[in-house]
Amino acid sequence: MYRPFLTLATFVFSFVTFAPAGIITPMFEYELIVTQGHARAGVFQTPHGALETPVFAPVGTQATVKLLTPDQVEGTGASLVLSNTYHLYLRPGDELVRDMGGVHNFMQWHGPMLTDSGGFQVFSLSNTNKVDEDGVTFRSHIDGSKHRFTPEKSIEIQNNLGADIIMAFDECADPYDEAYIKKAMDRTHRWAVRSVEAHKRPDQALFGIVQGGVNPDLRVESAKFISALDTPGIAIGGLSVGETKKDMYATLDVLAPALPQNKPRYLMGVGTPEDLIEGVRRGVDIFDCVLPTRLARHHAAFSPEGRLNLKNAVFKRDERPIDEACTCYTCQTFTRAYIRHLVVAKELLAGTLLSIHNLHALIHLVKDMRASILDGSFDEKVPAWLDRWAGNASKGR
Amino acid sequence: MYRPFLTLATFVFSFVTFAPAGIITPMFEYELIVTQGHARAGVFQTPHGALETPVFAPVGTQATVKLLTPDQVEGTGASLVLSNTYHLYLRPGDELVRDMGGVHNFMQWHGPMLTDSGGFQVFSLSNTNKVDEDGVTFRSHIDGSKHRFTPEKSIEIQNNLGADIIMAFDECADPYDEAYIKKAMDRTHRWAVRSVEAHKRPDQALFGIVQGGVNPDLRVESAKFISALDTPGIAIGGLSVGETKKDMYATLDVLAPALPQNKPRYLMGVGTPEDLIEGVRRGVDIFDCVLPTRLARHHAAFSPEGRLNLKNAVFKRDERPIDEACTCYTCQTFTRAYIRHLVVAKELLAGTLLSIHNLHALIHLVKDMRASILDGSFDEKVPAWLDRWAGNASKGR
Repeated sequence: MYRPFLTLATFVFSFVTFAPAGIITPMFEYELIVTQGHARAGVFQTPHGALETPVFAPVGTQATVKLLTPDQVEGTGASLVLSNTYHLYLRPGDELVRDMGGVHNFMQWHGPMLTDSGGFQVFSLSNTNKVDEDGVTFRSHIDGSKHRFTPEKSIEIQNNLGADIIMAFDECADPYDEAYIKKAMDRTHRWAVRSVEAHKRPDQALFGIVQGGVNPDLRVESAKFISALDTPGIAIGGLSVGETKKDMYATLDVLAPALPQNKPRYLMGVGTPEDLIEGVRRGVDIFDCVLPTRLARHHAAFSPEGRLNLKNAVFKRDERPIDEACTCYTCQTFTRAYIRHLVVAKELLAGTLLSIHNLHALIHLVKDMRASILDGSFDEKVPAWLDRWAGNASKGR
Repeated sequence: MYRPFLTLATFVFSFVTFAPAGIITPMFEYELIVTQGHARAGVFQTPHGALETPVFAPVGTQATVKLLTPDQVEGTGASLVLSNTYHLYLRPGDELVRDMGGVHNFMQWHGPMLTDSGGFQVFSLSNTNKVDEDGVTFRSHIDGSKHRFTPEKSIEIQNNLGADIIMAFDECADPYDEAYIKKAMDRTHRWAVRSVEAHKRPDQALFGIVQGGVNPDLRVESAKFISALDTPGIAIGGLSVGETKKDMYATLDVLAPALPQNKPRYLMGVGTPEDLIEGVRRGVDIFDCVLPTRLARHHAAFSPEGRLNLKNAVFKRDERPIDEACTCYTCQTFTRAYIRHLVVAKELLAGTLLSIHNLHALIHLVKDMRASILDGSFDEKVPAWLDRWAGNASKGR
């Protein structure tokens, strides 16, 4: 197979790994190339290559983007891949991943990588948890075993995993519970300070996380606090967790002018095509979401006709690709009729092909937005994008 | 992605599809290049390209080699892919496949393809069946619905599917039931004649199937009968269905001199690495088996250490590839530790990576045998191959 990218990336990786620690220069410069309104086109330097922003990142929860080889992930146009601290800590263990050369080497993704802090998962996935000022005690969703994350522990795990971009440990609250979001925000700030102090690897960029639910005052306060920590980038947490679209976009409107211009902004866990468009126009640089791959495993595909359910009998003899304008491997190669057959016959290749398409669709939507920011056509194109992708937030035919 | 093969193959496919039927010249010439003992190296011409024999074919039961894209199948070195008449008749239906441009176009495999007759599946998979002189009545393993296959129906389905190589409808018997194997052989002969008469497409090569269990006299009789039909190739059925290895190899010993030299010989549903070596030395040209992909989905890998179970804790920190000498994508890219993690974490990518390795191993074992027949070193290399692959017939560690 022809893999020029991997060959080059392997070289870069080797350099970073084998150079004596003292020589490694932290590279995490963000260059803001051009803005249009709040929308930004930039480049963020990482030890595994330059990351062109805005960018959408596939999620490789357990050190694999489900059903795809790294070659196939690369083929979707992906440049940044996310993996999950909570999952890798439980299985196979962060020390094992460290000893296998870090998460890049373990899963053989040699471009930029990002790990979350595990905070969101211990609150949402683990069976029980107890939060105190020091950290969170929780039980594994796999075997019920008891574990404890603190900011220091989360950073230690992420230092072991070795992603280029890592996250401060944070507490995510119900966005409409005013008392809790204030308390969680204040604790997130104290945990951010402890995360920065615990962080040991200059070849990893630690991002602080802004919280504050959908309360504009808290969001501005949190943006100020986290900005003052001067981390190489800033994440926006606590959105896409149950609030309305209107409230999510309003919160991004508040944050757009409140965050420093000279750092990349990462909106965690978002989202739908519409969310990406609305996010970019509000200054977001980095997105990640399980939606494209999760939908794919449930037979759904993003398309200009809305979200298609490929199990539907209407596709039985449909010789068109999922999206006639799409340049992904799936759309360039297979008919809806074939993918529908795979779904009905319970062939897992359906999930692979739909994952390729859905990832390609979101990644290239964001790439297209970047190109239009660079050439000054972003604002005029937004209505057409919103129109093309309307209906993909919910289930189509 | 870089796909010179598919581009070329698409051209060939287009030519065959769109040329007026009268112009298509049946190409099914078999050129026997060289023999060493009974081992044969040859080339079989098909409308989708020249097939270098001996060859091992992956099985794409439901018009997909499970968990692999056609690109990945090609990457294993595969040149011939098998698909199943019984399965495609039931789902999505052979007429649908025909209307979608045939099985090549449907699944986007543009190299040579082969379909079986459905005979083996109606006897082994369907819930109930009734055999009479005219054909077999059976119930679908999917929904219990009632169906009937006759030689004419099997050929009609295979004409609709459109593979390059198709099979006469046959009856497969318990190899140790002397009375039944004689009866099934005689019926297989009558069905072979009816299959030849029913066959309508000059761009498909219909192979007759030799039966006769493990009875040498019946096998010679069947070889004579089927050879007299002068089909472009001959299949050996009714082996690898419960008989001992010794009996299987003895039967191949009987058939080696009894079959015509000028036609390719296809041993159906075989087999293990050892079976491939023993088959090639007994003159077999074409093999297929679900074993490599089925084992892969059960975490097992062929290796010189024997069959590895990648779920085993011994591989937890094993940084070696499955097989250090293997040039497949999986072995060139991933450690046993990573694949073991995928298996334990129930990530389906494990099945993909192991399928790639197992197919590559068998396909390249047969390619290596072909090269050694061509350069005259086959006989001297057989002991080393048998030694290298010993232990892969049964479960290793």
